[in-house]
This record gives sequence, C-alpha cells and structure tokens, in this order.
Amino acid sequence: MTFPPLREELRGLEPYGAPQLDVPVQLNVNENPYGPSPACVADIATAVAHAATTLNRYPDREFVELRGALASYLSRDTPHGIAPEQVWAANGSNEVMLQLLQAFGGPGRSAMSFAPTYSMYPEYARDSVTEWVQGRREDDFSIDLDAAAALVREKRPAVVLLPSPNNPTGTALPPEAVGALCEAAGEGLVVVDEAYGEFRRTGVPSALELLPTYRNLVVTRTMSKAFAAAGLRLGYLAADPAICDAIRVVRLPYHLSAVTQATALAALRHAPELLGKVDELRAERDDTVAWLRAQGHQVADSDANFALFGTFPDRHAVWQGLLDRGVLIREVGPEGWLRVSIGTADEMKTFKQALTEVTEEKS
Amino acid sequence: MTFPPLREELRGLEPYGAPQLDVPVQLNVNENPYGPSPACVADIATAVAHAATTLNRYPDREFVELRGALASYLSRDTPHGIAPEQVWAANGSNEVMLQLLQAFGGPGRSAMSFAPTYSMYPEYARDSVTEWVQGRREDDFSIDLDAAAALVREKRPAVVLLPSPNNPTGTALPPEAVGALCEAAGEGLVVVDEAYGEFRRTGVPSALELLPTYRNLVVTRTMSKAFAAAGLRLGYLAADPAICDAIRVVRLPYHLSAVTQATALAALRHAPELLGKVDELRAERDDTVAWLRAQGHQVADSDANFALFGTFPDRHAVWQGLLDRGVLIREVGPEGWLRVSIGTADEMKTFKQALTEVTEEKS
Repeated sequence: MTFPPLREELRGLEPYGAPQLDVPVQLNVNENPYGPSPACVADIATAVAHAATTLNRYPDREFVELRGALASYLSRDTPHGIAPEQVWAANGSNEVMLQLLQAFGGPGRSAMSFAPTYSMYPEYARDSVTEWVQGRREDDFSIDLDAAAALVREKRPAVVLLPSPNNPTGTALPPEAVGALCEAAGEGLVVVDEAYGEFRRTGVPSALELLPTYRNLVVTRTMSKAFAAAGLRLGYLAADPAICDAIRVVRLPYHLSAVTQATALAALRHAPELLGKVDELRAERDDTVAWLRAQGHQVADSDANFALFGTFPDRHAVWQGLLDRGVLIREVGPEGWLRVSIGTADEMKTFKQALTEVTEEKS
Repeated sequence: MTFPPLREELRGLEPYGAPQLDVPVQLNVNENPYGPSPACVADIATAVAHAATTLNRYPDREFVELRGALASYLSRDTPHGIAPEQVWAANGSNEVMLQLLQAFGGPGRSAMSFAPTYSMYPEYARDSVTEWVQGRREDDFSIDLDAAAALVREKRPAVVLLPSPNNPTGTALPPEAVGALCEAAGEGLVVVDEAYGEFRRTGVPSALELLPTYRNLVVTRTMSKAFAAAGLRLGYLAADPAICDAIRVVRLPYHLSAVTQATALAALRHAPELLGKVDELRAERDDTVAWLRAQGHQVADSDANFALFGTFPDRHAVWQGLLDRGVLIREVGPEGWLRVSIGTADEMKTFKQALTEVTEEKS
C-alpha cells in the first residue's frame, strides 16, 4: 500500500474546485457581484456579537429560528406556503445533497442525473457510496421527458437530481417535467436543485409549488447565488417534514454553528436588499446572451446568472486569453463550451471587450 | 417501501444528541462554562464585519490564514513545531472524523476503537460505510496494550480511533501506547482524538510530539472544549501533509465559511484569554473527583473537563433527580455511570448539593 492509504478509487483525483485567482474581473463561480451594504454588514456584526457572548455553548442543534426564517422566505414562491418543519439547512447546498444521499442513497442504491450537469453530483454519490447513473440531455440541453421517465422507471434510482436552472447550461425545467419524473420515480426522491432559482425568467414557476402534490419531491436552494452570501455557506431544502426528520439521523450534531445561524438570520432580514440586484442581473444576462449570439456564438438559453457559450476548437486558449486580460471565466461543460457568470454592467463590458480581442486574435 | 425511503439500517434510529434543555446549571456537554470577554466579542464582531463586506464571494477554499494560525497554536505543544501544511480543519472535529473515514475508510475497510468510548465514532463509520470493529477497555477504562495491539494486527483496521483523554471516561493514553498502536497499525492510520487534550494533567504529553516518529499518526483537536468556542464549530487535525492533501479530495468545496474562518482567527488571537480558565477547571475537576470519592462513589481518573462517576442501580432516577433541582448532567457511558462536566465553582457547589439530596433521598 502506498502512503497515505487513500481509498483506491480516490487516488490521483484532483480536488473539485475552480482556480481561486486574484483577478480584477471574477466571472467564474456564479457569485452575485454585489456585496452587502454597510447597514447589512453592521447588522450581521451585531448579530454575531450577540451570538458570540455565549460562544462557549453549543448552538441550537435544531436551528429552530433559522428554519422559521427560511420557511417565511420560501413562502413567497408558492401559494401553499412553507412551514418551518418542511425546511432543513446545512453548510452549503453541497452538504444538504450529501446528507440526502447518506440518508436515502448509499450501498445498493443509485442516484441519477442528466448530463451535462453539475459536476459535484457524482462526487456526492461517490462519497456516500451511492451508485451513479447518468442520463443525457438533448443537444439543446433540455431533457427528453419520455426518455428520462423511461430511464427512471428502468433504473429505479433512490434519488433523482434535477437542477433547475441547470448548471452549467442555465436550462430551466418545466413544471410538467418535474411532475412526470416525480411520478416515474415511484418511491425514489426527486431533488430539484434550485440553486439559481431566483434568477429564473418571468413565468417560470418554482418547483416549490408542486410540494403539496408530490411527497417524494425535495426542492433545494442556497444563499450563495441570488442571495449574495456565498461566503456564508448556507444551503437549505423544502420537503415533506418526514424527509427533514429522517436527515437528522445522518447530520453531524451541531452542524450549523451559532455564527452561521446568526449571520444567516441577519442576511434574511436584509433579503430585499441582498436580492435587490436580481432583476438587474437578469437583464444583464439577457443582454449578454443576445450580444454573444450577435457575435456569432452559440449560447444556451439561460434562466440563471451565467451563460454557456461556444463552441471553440481550443476553449482553453480562449479562457487563457481572457485571463491574460484580467477576466476569469470558467472552463466547464461539454467540450468547446465556456461559462461566464453575470457580473456588473462594467464587468460585462470588460468581458465583451476582452472576448472580442481574443476571438479576433484567434481568427 | 415505507415513506420516506430512508436506508433500511437507519430506520427507527434516534438522531445523536443530548437533550438541549434550558436549565440553570448545564453540565451535560462538556462545554467550558466561561464565555468570552467583551473585548474578545468585539474583536470577533469586527473580524466578521470585515469578512462580511465581501460576503457575496466564496471563502478561501484552502483557508490558508487559518491553517497558519492553528499551526502556530499547536506548536506550543510540541518541540518539533507544526507547519501550516500539516493542519486541516472542518466544521467541528466530527466533520474532520467523517472526512478521514471517507478518505481512508469506506467499503471493504474497517475502523476500530475501544469501548466505552465516544458514541459518535460508530456513526461516522456507518455514514462512511466503513466496517466498525470494537475492542474493549479494562474495568478501569485503561487499554490493555498487548491485547489492543494484537487486535489491531488481527483486524488490520484502516483507521484506529484513540481518544485521549477518552470520552466519557476521561482516561488519557500514555505516549508509549500511541507509539505501540501506530506500529501495530502498519499502513493504517491512528487518530488520537485530543478534543480534551488541553485539560490533561501536568506531565501527560500531547501525541503531537510523536508526529515526526509515526507518519501514520493523526492528532485531532477542537475549539469547542478548552478553547471555549463550542458555538463556532471548528475542529482540526495535525498530520503528515500528504494526509491533509488527501482529505481535500473528499472535502465539500468551500466547507469552511468566511464567517467561520474570521471568527476562528479572532478567537485564536484571544487564545490566552479563552484558555485562561483551563487551570481553574482542572483544579475544579480534581476537587470534584476527590469530593465524589469522599462520598463513596466510584470515579474514573480524569484528564478531561468532566468526571464519570457511579455506579447507580437506577442512574436515570439520579439524572432526573438532579434535573429536578436545575442541574443537567449526562446519562452516558457504561450501565450505572453518569457523567458531569466541570462548571464554575458555584455550579459545582450546586451540583454537589443536589447530588447529596438525591442520593440521600434514594438511600
């Protein structure tokens, strides 16, 4: 055995993660470009100071107040409302996903998604020893509903992961697709990952509306994207209370620190401000997509705060050319495609200028 | 299949965790009874405010500054020093343990400890699909070294978990035991869990001193106990840099929030204050052990901030009798024993008074 005695299947793997580079224009990890106001920062500091006076004590293991605040926040997206006992949270939606697979996946069970999709999904499956089954998306990154439902019925996955909007393509899923797959999944869970849900285009409903209809439906969210709080690491879900309760068996005790709970509560009090730039970012996204198409690029329809565009015979050269001009985007997705996060108007101007230079140089 | 479709082996299990009750004297989860000073709270708030100005950005995935600060802190406990690349951290030492088992345990591998010991260990094994092998401690809760080494050689566990001091017994492990088990483990890892390490009695060395001798040795710590920061949820380890690097493959990206990193760094700057009550707590522990023995109770020798005492024909009645008097302790450990955390002098006075009443009532 070589040292260290890492599991055989993990040897030689690179840890997940985009390069963290100090570059003027960061459009690589789908962050909201707008930081909190001084008033919001002050409120967070006050909340943390209050929590820190009893820092010697363990936090509320059931994070009751935070579950209530998240339930109120989610209730705006569904006429049925969301109750606190329908909410669960963890350190980032990646911990939520891992917990879901630890509780409902595992040895002898499988999880499924439709590629191209979020590249962490197979890692959650690997780390929870859940078999990974990968369906495919169509050329336009949509899901062929009949084929998908047939694959679900054939493979009977314990968990189906359905990001909507999808990352890295930006593709949203119509509600009828969610319903059909919930039915096809039978006793398996269908997890609609709405990490980018708040950026969806007008008229695209949240899967939250379907919760009363399908008890095997789980909708996950994060405060990292539209909510402009990636540094907080707070992911959450809404589902049948029995699902939340089952997760408690596998969650690490006291997994949400007192500091995290206090910061999240303060951020939720400032929801109107933190989400205040979402409309601007959606408009900027639509402009970016239109501009990229006008330059002759292929661009996937996007309901998220990023755009997948291409294709380039040497996408790495384009990525590097942009980086040389101080613009960091992401080399991700199917061969030949690149993903750009939507930044401020100024940042997008710099991106466009840089891309024009790079593509002129290459042609 | 019943709903929700929880894994078969998890059905009917209660989530881990002591009751969180609002009681005047809380001596149940081995917290440090002393909260931070206003100056420390103010520094934490300032640090978090600074971090929150860029809350829209993801945190430093490699938490470089925090690793450096933890390395400096640990270096006081070993003449060889600890370098930042020898340090890894996560949201509580329970996440550190889970990551260790995900990377080095898993299907087809086993983890081992010696009971009675920390009841979360088998849960980490279960959640990482690692086989659990349980050795036994002697009647005085020490480990028979020859028998333990023989069991390790026979079962060849991928990971041996050795808390020192042990929870819930308080028993520290002599350095020769750590060395012998590191040798017996061959290519397996030996994890010495020093969650309560700072409370050890004078003359008991930290296993950190043995790191240069045994490259399969991992020493874990937490800021939850002596460091008086249970609300922060920060656990960490020191080991060969190759071990830290291997964990990066299974860690969830950005697992340590910007808020957690900022708070931990601020707390480490106040280490002298936060650790300032450790000597007082050690003296209070020794007094408590002596007092309990003077009352005729059996008490395990303790190098930690708690004492395991007994035995009671009906320990639940004693636990309840104390709770009725506003004193919450823990019903844990072998049948008939109870565990009391060491609080302030006043809290211990209340505990002693209450225990006297309860035992007089029962006799």
